[in-house]
Amino acid sequence: MALADSDEITLEELQLAARNHGMPLEALRYPLTPVGLHYLLTHYDIPAVDPASWRLEVGGHVERALSLSLDELRARRHVRLPVTMECAGNGRAALSPRPVSQPWLLEAVGTAEWRGTPLRPLLEEAGILAGAVDVLFTGLDRGVEADVEQAYERSLSTADALRDEVLLAWEINGEALPPQHGFPLRLVVPGWYGMASVKWLGRITVLDHPYEGYQQRSAYRLRQVEDEDGEPLTRLRPRALMVPPGVPEFMSRRRILDLGPCVLEGRAWSGGDPVVSVEMSTDGGSTWAAAELAEPPGAFAWSAWRFEWDASAPGEYMLCCRARNGAGAGQPLEALWNLGGYANNAVQRVPVTIRP
Amino acid sequence: MALADSDEITLEELQLAARNHGMPLEALRYPLTPVGLHYLLTHYDIPAVDPASWRLEVGGHVERALSLSLDELRARRHVRLPVTMECAGNGRAALSPRPVSQPWLLEAVGTAEWRGTPLRPLLEEAGILAGAVDVLFTGLDRGVEADVEQAYERSLSTADALRDEVLLAWEINGEALPPQHGFPLRLVVPGWYGMASVKWLGRITVLDHPYEGYQQRSAYRLRQVEDEDGEPLTRLRPRALMVPPGVPEFMSRRRILDLGPCVLEGRAWSGGDPVVSVEMSTDGGSTWAAAELAEPPGAFAWSAWRFEWDASAPGEYMLCCRARNGAGAGQPLEALWNLGGYANNAVQRVPVTIRP
Repeated sequence: MALADSDEITLEELQLAARNHGMPLEALRYPLTPVGLHYLLTHYDIPAVDPASWRLEVGGHVERALSLSLDELRARRHVRLPVTMECAGNGRAALSPRPVSQPWLLEAVGTAEWRGTPLRPLLEEAGILAGAVDVLFTGLDRGVEADVEQAYERSLSTADALRDEVLLAWEINGEALPPQHGFPLRLVVPGWYGMASVKWLGRITVLDHPYEGYQQRSAYRLRQVEDEDGEPLTRLRPRALMVPPGVPEFMSRRRILDLGPCVLEGRAWSGGDPVVSVEMSTDGGSTWAAAELAEPPGAFAWSAWRFEWDASAPGEYMLCCRARNGAGAGQPLEALWNLGGYANNAVQRVPVTIRP
Repeated sequence: MALADSDEITLEELQLAARNHGMPLEALRYPLTPVGLHYLLTHYDIPAVDPASWRLEVGGHVERALSLSLDELRARRHVRLPVTMECAGNGRAALSPRPVSQPWLLEAVGTAEWRGTPLRPLLEEAGILAGAVDVLFTGLDRGVEADVEQAYERSLSTADALRDEVLLAWEINGEALPPQHGFPLRLVVPGWYGMASVKWLGRITVLDHPYEGYQQRSAYRLRQVEDEDGEPLTRLRPRALMVPPGVPEFMSRRRILDLGPCVLEGRAWSGGDPVVSVEMSTDGGSTWAAAELAEPPGAFAWSAWRFEWDASAPGEYMLCCRARNGAGAGQPLEALWNLGGYANNAVQRVPVTIRP
């Protein structure tokens, strides 16, 4: 993978890369990603929210509007659910020409155990009226996009919003949400790219018309050209990533390994049908062999995999891994370009040097 | 601030920027930086350490070598100390030509409350022998630099190692160290740039000769040319940073504010003599006025400051802030270049638009 010479990273992209952060890939070793290693994308600023005065407002096209404090939400039935979350822009910086936004390589992923209350019973209490189409989730973070000041907002269809696994979460990995993950409350939409899981949630509005806001209609759609309607991003495409083996060279991150047997390990996920196979190649994708795949810790969380490699000859190798899900969807060897740089699940390529 | 056209960010720098992360500047609002928002630079990989088998070895030019388990360390006298830590490379990406390494802009800082045991009594128990010169701290993280595989290692002079405030820490902000901050044990050298605070500490070795390893002799020195000996980096230069006011435009991060009175806030620090003044300019540094400076939460932690600005006319403004310490050291208006891109404490410049 390389950045095209004609295509240098701009100050604007660097500003985003310095604010946001990926998960260093050695952290694939943890079934649950420790806080601070989970990827993080903040569109605007992390807002300061006073939990004492904060309330979740539920309204719009409903029988009765609700207003709930954090204590009232925490007193409801709650569940813990491990969820693998990935940024829709993961892999963007490997596209050529490179779509200009947060320049992710491969690290925009993490798995956390969220604790929260299912959304569905809350919507049922509010009473969704006939004719409802979308449910809009409004964050407390504000910024300017397309010259308009706005809150970060995303919608789900009523059918998607009523799925059992959709949560309003106040805890990550057994701790109160830290500011950067949406304190005091966030939406978690398991199986979907991260843009759906609105942080710093302030308001839920049931709409009798399709939501047409910036993050729904302009951003997060697969398009080849600007004036195309495009396909909205929803569920995570299958992907396997490996822990880069051996030791890194500081600047190049090139990996150096000793001769001999070596266990290659990683995680694999898919937001739709579960992952059914992971394969490894040590020759840049010419030949593949099955890796051993473990049961995932939950229906929406990544699976561990391992592959025993006998690195028996010194030299240069290109390690690749790929996942396939139960519906037959896999990963392309070469990245598929789109205007926003979304959903690039091309196989990871890790060049390694086996030293004598 | 701009990146020179001739000077594009490379894939290698982007790989580092995607792994490491700064503190989004709105997090200057927190006296203690929440875990996950504190800056993080990992030279090699975050190592997996088994705390049950881990021990700290203390040896070298001492009367008696020591070997301590984590429980034995935790049973020693311990203190909590808030410490502002900053990467020596903070500000590197604003230099022209840009030294190639982790491309920090301004965000490589954070303040944490570390809990740990003072180093000095431990060294006294081991008994430093006459003729000792340096104390070497060896991390468990390994990588390749200058073509040599090595552990991350840094030394302190015996005098610096025996300072009261130097800690061996196992907790950050009241929690066990997460993997990325040095689990199970790290060195904390208050007042110094972050390279001194070795993470994943495995061994302390008292030396009867100066330590000449890569991170001491080649890296982390102020130099204009390669073959110069250079001045080693030690204590943080004074710096003030502000919370960027108003709301950001997503890509440019340009700030938009409403007309009217506005409180500008931030933090200021200095690793040597304490900060005695912070000044604000709203005209790009032509005129300055004193900000109100609060007492810091500790001798090695940043101070809050605030400045009331009456943004009474719409238009474009360039906000700047600068700190000065008790020894008279301040911040330059323009960055001072050096080969490694270290210790660039040029004043922060935040362009803002006041809308009618």
